[in-house]
Amino acid sequence: MKTSERTGQVVALCGGIGGAKLALGLSRVLAPGELSVIVNTGDDFEHLGLHISPDLDTVLYTLAGLADPERGWGRADESWNFMQALGRLGGETWFNLGDRDLAMHAARTAFLRAGGTLSAFAADTVRKLGIHAHLVPMSDDAVRTIIETDEDDLPFQHYFVRRRCDPVVKAIRFEGARSAKPAPGVLALLTNPTLRAVIICPSNPYLSVDPILSVPGIRDALSSSRAPVIVVSPIIGGHAVKGPTAKIMKELGLSVTTETIVAHYRGLIDALVIDRADGGDAARAGLPVLVTQTLMKDVVDRERLASAVLDFADDLRLTTSEMERASADA
Amino acid sequence: MKTSERTGQVVALCGGIGGAKLALGLSRVLAPGELSVIVNTGDDFEHLGLHISPDLDTVLYTLAGLADPERGWGRADESWNFMQALGRLGGETWFNLGDRDLAMHAARTAFLRAGGTLSAFAADTVRKLGIHAHLVPMSDDAVRTIIETDEDDLPFQHYFVRRRCDPVVKAIRFEGARSAKPAPGVLALLTNPTLRAVIICPSNPYLSVDPILSVPGIRDALSSSRAPVIVVSPIIGGHAVKGPTAKIMKELGLSVTTETIVAHYRGLIDALVIDRADGGDAARAGLPVLVTQTLMKDVVDRERLASAVLDFADDLRLTTSEMERASADA
Repeated sequence: MKTSERTGQVVALCGGIGGAKLALGLSRVLAPGELSVIVNTGDDFEHLGLHISPDLDTVLYTLAGLADPERGWGRADESWNFMQALGRLGGETWFNLGDRDLAMHAARTAFLRAGGTLSAFAADTVRKLGIHAHLVPMSDDAVRTIIETDEDDLPFQHYFVRRRCDPVVKAIRFEGARSAKPAPGVLALLTNPTLRAVIICPSNPYLSVDPILSVPGIRDALSSSRAPVIVVSPIIGGHAVKGPTAKIMKELGLSVTTETIVAHYRGLIDALVIDRADGGDAARAGLPVLVTQTLMKDVVDRERLASAVLDFADDLRLTTSEMERASADA
Repeated sequence: MKTSERTGQVVALCGGIGGAKLALGLSRVLAPGELSVIVNTGDDFEHLGLHISPDLDTVLYTLAGLADPERGWGRADESWNFMQALGRLGGETWFNLGDRDLAMHAARTAFLRAGGTLSAFAADTVRKLGIHAHLVPMSDDAVRTIIETDEDDLPFQHYFVRRRCDPVVKAIRFEGARSAKPAPGVLALLTNPTLRAVIICPSNPYLSVDPILSVPGIRDALSSSRAPVIVVSPIIGGHAVKGPTAKIMKELGLSVTTETIVAHYRGLIDALVIDRADGGDAARAGLPVLVTQTLMKDVVDRERLASAVLDFADDLRLTTSEMERASADA
């Protein structure tokens, strides 16, 4: 009989688009204040004098209902007069910035220049946009994802946007990670003894989740968390839904399979959520597996997946509690 | 008989709106490449992480035909989606930035961050916008106009835009001026022995021209210039056409008259252009005076005033040459 507890703090780790979709689902099925999202900032960069935080903004816009549903980045109902004028002035136009989206970058840059932190800006913006979840960047220090390719070492946005993921990836490193500190609250969130679940969203493990795990202290906090840590695989039927996950896995010599994802997170996760298309992999995972539809086409999909993952986590906790009780009784 | 030479280099010193209008007139009546405009950068400031150069942009937009004819600043056909979004994010909205105008600030900021100079950016932008005049900021170093008021010391834009010139001005100082260098080419422009004329545009003497004169070397170059130095008075019938010139003069204990303008530029100028409304002041100026219509309502006014000032300068040169010849003959 299922008696999953239906309240408690939940932490999600996420990058951009895919992660933001599940984060939105979680924010809609959880009570206000129950969800905290730790967001990748390895993609952050300075561009045109502005501090741009692509993943943080994707999550902010998604949770605030401002995201463009088609593009996957930036705001809905956007205008592009800035970019057009910038082109006329011979400025760099490879990174698209909508007129409304620019306001976020300018507000953040001003906040940081005035001595504020990225996490304080995120908290402030969450409040101003009426979002009912906590959004925490992985670190207030600069950690920069650098893609080592067959051509050159490329900062993430140069690889991802400017070069459209074209160069072959040899390795990925996170500059500044060694001396970075988790943003205030990050470790407390993960080590909270009453935490209901930690969910690693279906974001790119190498580009979006690894930067978070590269910040000293976060990996340890995660592996010692008393809550079930569950990864939602970004692979569906041997493909990635969006973005370069599958391409990068192949270039790094990895097979695009559930096993690779499990191996990547070994020692860190307690369970796995995979798509029905990969249901056959469940037996070989060596971990509790929930097989469900992980593709999120609309908000109903997002809520349904969020609920399914939470139920799964609650079942795992229950099992763990029973095991602990059984062992105590023994 | 009038035999004014109709070619030769002309230098204009100017601030924002009024200055830009005459600069446009000059650029239209002179041959391409003959006009150089030395522009006030004392109003420059960092805002939202961007380097903003209000006077430089007003001159750029005016000469490029992109300026809004009503507002006096910014671009025509502008949209304001950035500002609206910034307001929603609780950002600083006291300084209006149009979506297209923003491109200029972003391009400039990126250029400066990459190690470029303001003068190199201006030269680059002049070329990109197809302007046929040289535009030179007074200095590549930061010189900042600070308004000492009865309330507080205010950076120029805070006084001018945020506080709408409301506080009473006690004094004006130019921070950084002492250690600033004129931008490359500025001194060479002014000391060019074949220079046709130096025209101080009808800009605010205290807020727009004094910052230029505060840069070490410029005042000396101006007073030793062999070309006639002519100021076009910003006063018309005891009033300023636009902006806080008259208010500031009163607050500084000065009468809003031609005499005050002459006294302000004493030792620096060879002649004066005043409006017909102040024609009665001509006799007391103690300098050659051209009385004409200085109000520039449209582009025809601008060209007419530009031509009149150039003719006046040529007459002055001729007179000077005749005097020199006469003295050599004696």
